[in-house]
Amino acid sequence: MTATSPESQGDRPGRIMAREMAEQPDVMRRLLGTGAPRIQDVARQVASRSPRFVLLAARGTSDNAALYAKYLLEIRLGMPCGLTSMSTITAYGARPDLSDVLVITVSQSGGSPDLVASTRAAREAGAITLAVTNNPDSPLAAVSEYHIDIMAGPEKALPATKTYTASLLALHLFVEGLRGGDGAAAKVLPELAAGLLARQDEVRVLASRYRFAGRMVITSRGYGYPTAKEAALKLMETSYIPALSYSGADLLHGPLAMVDNISPVIAVVTDGRGGEALQPVLDRLRGRGADLVVVGPRAQVEQASAGFVLPTEGVAEEVQPMLEIIPLQLLAYEVTIARGQDPDAPRALAKVTETH
Amino acid sequence: MTATSPESQGDRPGRIMAREMAEQPDVMRRLLGTGAPRIQDVARQVASRSPRFVLLAARGTSDNAALYAKYLLEIRLGMPCGLTSMSTITAYGARPDLSDVLVITVSQSGGSPDLVASTRAAREAGAITLAVTNNPDSPLAAVSEYHIDIMAGPEKALPATKTYTASLLALHLFVEGLRGGDGAAAKVLPELAAGLLARQDEVRVLASRYRFAGRMVITSRGYGYPTAKEAALKLMETSYIPALSYSGADLLHGPLAMVDNISPVIAVVTDGRGGEALQPVLDRLRGRGADLVVVGPRAQVEQASAGFVLPTEGVAEEVQPMLEIIPLQLLAYEVTIARGQDPDAPRALAKVTETH
Repeated sequence: MTATSPESQGDRPGRIMAREMAEQPDVMRRLLGTGAPRIQDVARQVASRSPRFVLLAARGTSDNAALYAKYLLEIRLGMPCGLTSMSTITAYGARPDLSDVLVITVSQSGGSPDLVASTRAAREAGAITLAVTNNPDSPLAAVSEYHIDIMAGPEKALPATKTYTASLLALHLFVEGLRGGDGAAAKVLPELAAGLLARQDEVRVLASRYRFAGRMVITSRGYGYPTAKEAALKLMETSYIPALSYSGADLLHGPLAMVDNISPVIAVVTDGRGGEALQPVLDRLRGRGADLVVVGPRAQVEQASAGFVLPTEGVAEEVQPMLEIIPLQLLAYEVTIARGQDPDAPRALAKVTETH
Repeated sequence: MTATSPESQGDRPGRIMAREMAEQPDVMRRLLGTGAPRIQDVARQVASRSPRFVLLAARGTSDNAALYAKYLLEIRLGMPCGLTSMSTITAYGARPDLSDVLVITVSQSGGSPDLVASTRAAREAGAITLAVTNNPDSPLAAVSEYHIDIMAGPEKALPATKTYTASLLALHLFVEGLRGGDGAAAKVLPELAAGLLARQDEVRVLASRYRFAGRMVITSRGYGYPTAKEAALKLMETSYIPALSYSGADLLHGPLAMVDNISPVIAVVTDGRGGEALQPVLDRLRGRGADLVVVGPRAQVEQASAGFVLPTEGVAEEVQPMLEIIPLQLLAYEVTIARGQDPDAPRALAKVTETH
């Protein structure tokens, strides 16, 4: 699908993205229901191969899902992990020894030629290959030894939303499966996600703040960092606002100089150790007079310029990213509508990006 | 040193940064001379331990040097690699099994507490630990099993310049040492670097282009991608222009929507496979009417809106990043001067950033 597809010519801008965001609780229920046993089965098979390292390969939104998986694998499993620099394989022909290495490729479409090529090369180099896609019939699924279907249904808006949360949930269930768990921490998500989606009016108020923003900085730490990156990508590809995302620690190592009272900052504060580790960064930002909007627990929001309270009480930190992103998806949508653009069809983008 | 240090109060803004940029050819000569045999010795010792996987840990400018090392390790050595998400260890207490894993920590000062803590944890978890710093007496050097001194001499300007190219060269010599080479490809660098530094007037003309820029996008692919990231960081921390860096492939997966005729783009085009892989991205950018400035070989510059020609003929692609960054350091400097700010002392930054 391209930006000129008839489906984006409907009467209301953003109606496709809106519909797909709204489907997220149902997609989560599907994955937790019929999806979970299949994912556990894949996890059991992969675990029996005893991988020592994990490499993750992805692009765009899926790359942020891969980064979330990296945190899970390192923290929950103690497995050393890396994100693949794809061009080393596709452009330079690197052929590393990948025995004992699990290569996880995440792609909504499963169609990008570079991901198919790098997965094929990894398999030839001895890797255990797993594809996580929204299309079991895709070339990527075919070339991989194992496949997990994220079961999100067709996604037609150009900005990926439901496939992002579905990828996160599938990866969460997979990693919990690798450690012999049942992923019970995720069972609360569909209902909480539905509650967040019902608060679109609150997000609309926040969005008015960014109507004329010339730039934005989004920061977080730990499990929330992939959310910060995905929120920045979503804002950029829909509203075209240059949104820079940094881990809180990296923000202090340079980009902080760029933050002043006309550079709004959004902080994604998880309820847990990532949020705790972010506190010194929030203090520095408040000290610089930054306009600080917090997406996080109530106590954090109350200390900020404004924010969106997340229902994190009793929710395991590692599943919070599937909630945190929802108000930020809504924000990208609302800011874009407020700026008179159509979130369904950002200029210059095609749904399946063919990179080689 | 902090932003209020007396050394930054001199009569001419940016004089410390200018002096340190100018030292780069001498630093390179020192590393290639007395440094190289020591680095080869460390490489021999590490190689005898037969690491299977490499994890790289760093922050800020050093993180871009670490990314360069990742490309070298994957392409030149076929070694699977990852960049560490430090908070998994320092905030979440992850303790992965790191036997057979080489952990390389890159830090100019060797003083950041989180790097010291994560290196200590890695060593306790069985990793082979190597610190690459500009200070052999630093806590990081002390806590690591092996140490490489980048021999850049004291760096006092807040924006790191000579320690960046010195880190790259030290890492290049180390990786070549691991594969039993002598790093001869780097011998041409000091003279070529001196030639680039002598072309500051050309850069000043380019800088006038960005005097009023509200944002910038910097892109590259392969070996040039760390250069794009470092150039963006340098521009942000000195001039405060929000500069977004993307690998060319990732740019097509979303952020391209943000590029229009008022969003200038700088492309770092290496003379080699990375540059070739970037061509479809450059075509898309030209097709969108982007203001495209190329830092690269003459033929590439001639097809762009403007540019800076690099003397890449006969220079191995893997050492080109040590040249590419120099005009971009000069650009950050000149843009900052043109905007009436002092590149030596960006607001809000301290030379040794204490992140935990």
